[in-house]
Amino acid sequence: MTPTLSERVLAGEPRAIARAMTLIENERPEAAALLQRIFPHTGRAFLVGITGPPGAGKSTLVDRLAAHLRRAGLTVGIVAVDPTSPYSGGAVLGDRVRMQAHAGDAGVFIRSMATRGHLGGLARATSEVALVLDAAGKDVIVIETVGVGQDEVDIVRMADVSVVTLVPGTGDEVQAIKAGIMEIADVFAVNKADREGADRTVSAIETMLSLNTYGPGDWKPPVVRTTATTGSGVDTLWAEIGRFREHPAASRLARRRTRAGFRLRELLGHRFLRFVEHEVLGPAELEGYYERIAAREVDPYTAAAEIMALALGRQEKGT
Amino acid sequence: MTPTLSERVLAGEPRAIARAMTLIENERPEAAALLQRIFPHTGRAFLVGITGPPGAGKSTLVDRLAAHLRRAGLTVGIVAVDPTSPYSGGAVLGDRVRMQAHAGDAGVFIRSMATRGHLGGLARATSEVALVLDAAGKDVIVIETVGVGQDEVDIVRMADVSVVTLVPGTGDEVQAIKAGIMEIADVFAVNKADREGADRTVSAIETMLSLNTYGPGDWKPPVVRTTATTGSGVDTLWAEIGRFREHPAASRLARRRTRAGFRLRELLGHRFLRFVEHEVLGPAELEGYYERIAAREVDPYTAAAEIMALALGRQEKGT
Repeated sequence: MTPTLSERVLAGEPRAIARAMTLIENERPEAAALLQRIFPHTGRAFLVGITGPPGAGKSTLVDRLAAHLRRAGLTVGIVAVDPTSPYSGGAVLGDRVRMQAHAGDAGVFIRSMATRGHLGGLARATSEVALVLDAAGKDVIVIETVGVGQDEVDIVRMADVSVVTLVPGTGDEVQAIKAGIMEIADVFAVNKADREGADRTVSAIETMLSLNTYGPGDWKPPVVRTTATTGSGVDTLWAEIGRFREHPAASRLARRRTRAGFRLRELLGHRFLRFVEHEVLGPAELEGYYERIAAREVDPYTAAAEIMALALGRQEKGT
Repeated sequence: MTPTLSERVLAGEPRAIARAMTLIENERPEAAALLQRIFPHTGRAFLVGITGPPGAGKSTLVDRLAAHLRRAGLTVGIVAVDPTSPYSGGAVLGDRVRMQAHAGDAGVFIRSMATRGHLGGLARATSEVALVLDAAGKDVIVIETVGVGQDEVDIVRMADVSVVTLVPGTGDEVQAIKAGIMEIADVFAVNKADREGADRTVSAIETMLSLNTYGPGDWKPPVVRTTATTGSGVDTLWAEIGRFREHPAASRLARRRTRAGFRLRELLGHRFLRFVEHEVLGPAELEGYYERIAAREVDPYTAAAEIMALALGRQEKGT
């Protein structure tokens, strides 16, 4: 018998992994069934989230980290969340360029995620793509996000460890503090540490951290200096991630519960909308509501109440 | 008779506006009723979305733009979307600092939006806060977003005009292209134009734009140089925004339909989750699902299917 796609994913076949990810990205109906089948085989991988402002050198740092992990005999999955327009094809091209660095190594799988059409879709798709890599047996999954938006922060926060990358100069320290990404950092990486101003950036972070009070059992985020272009500091970064992993504060169960809650809520919202679009309203009816709201003929709150009543069967459609 | 909150909002009372916004931010039940009442009085304001990478000087630029609009006799609402942690209080402090610039001027109302607890919530709250300012009679509403995340891009894309701000140097041009924010720009502002490298940034954008083919009736995004600290170029920026406003490409109706669709879908998803949490499942049942998913006892897809069946009354709870 020909093995099914889920069996091939579980066997770690790169082409099956890629195919599964495409089903997820295109929101194909087969994706849900596939995820259902592989889910019991997930939960083994260690998820590393890496974020920071644009230009912080995250891609290079992640590539170096992957090489480091490979030398330690670990397999690696990389999900690069890059809100590139689906039209530009940047994501695909980026994958190809980056794959060169790990050419011929089946132990590394890289996937870039482009912007999805609707809100929240990117975070859901990212978590599902990570599940595929987990099921495929990757030991470490690195989720790398460009930007400091809420979606990106949410994606990284759901990882087992969150690394925030900053670079010296250009006032990024202050911006990062403003953008609220400091609170989600379990480990800081000051990348491009050979640049002028690295000391200032490190001390800006440490000053900020010193405003918190840490008890004896608390985890205080370490600040690691890295130079991704040479690979300097990448071993220390991984050592600190490992130290966090062993620390009670890491509480993988709590993060898994958060991830589970996010996934379930997201799925419910998404399925309810599909139900409304396909089973409650006629094909053009939802669009008709948009028109009427745009023309101020109805307000969205009244429209939502009407649709909710229809959907929950409190009144039958057309009667 | 004492005027109701919605009447006071419609009369443009600053304290009522602030109170309405707090109801929205805290997701109070009164917010929906209020929005329902004010909605028919909205749709008059012109919405300007401004985004760009961190450190591009957006706040200063927006303040200068507000001052320019005030001199032209227009009233202004500013919604600064700042994913600051709700714990840091940065948003409130920021408002106070920025209000100084427009002290004693009732024609400017500034509100910062902090990160909401869940995905998509920030974009919804932002659009609702903009509705309040619209109902309160502000002529122009500027929505300013930090970062280049998907949420932020979505927020700006829904405005009547989208301004993308870049700064010379630090490779931001390339990052912005990567981050897919170029496609949403109706107008580009190269801020800090007195800095070295401004010419290079302007030509990088123009080169990128030249890759598109524009027909005779198409809108080609202009590139404006601004120096927010001195106010230089702000009048030209507003002139270009005005030119876009008059251009057929602006198609306010299409954007309003997009906004309406977003708002309605968001509301439906949100209300369905509330319904599930409060009427379908017992208080701890949803949490119980999270636990079981985290423990791999059930997968999220099966859990979602079970909850959907319960919620849509295909089987009665407890029977």
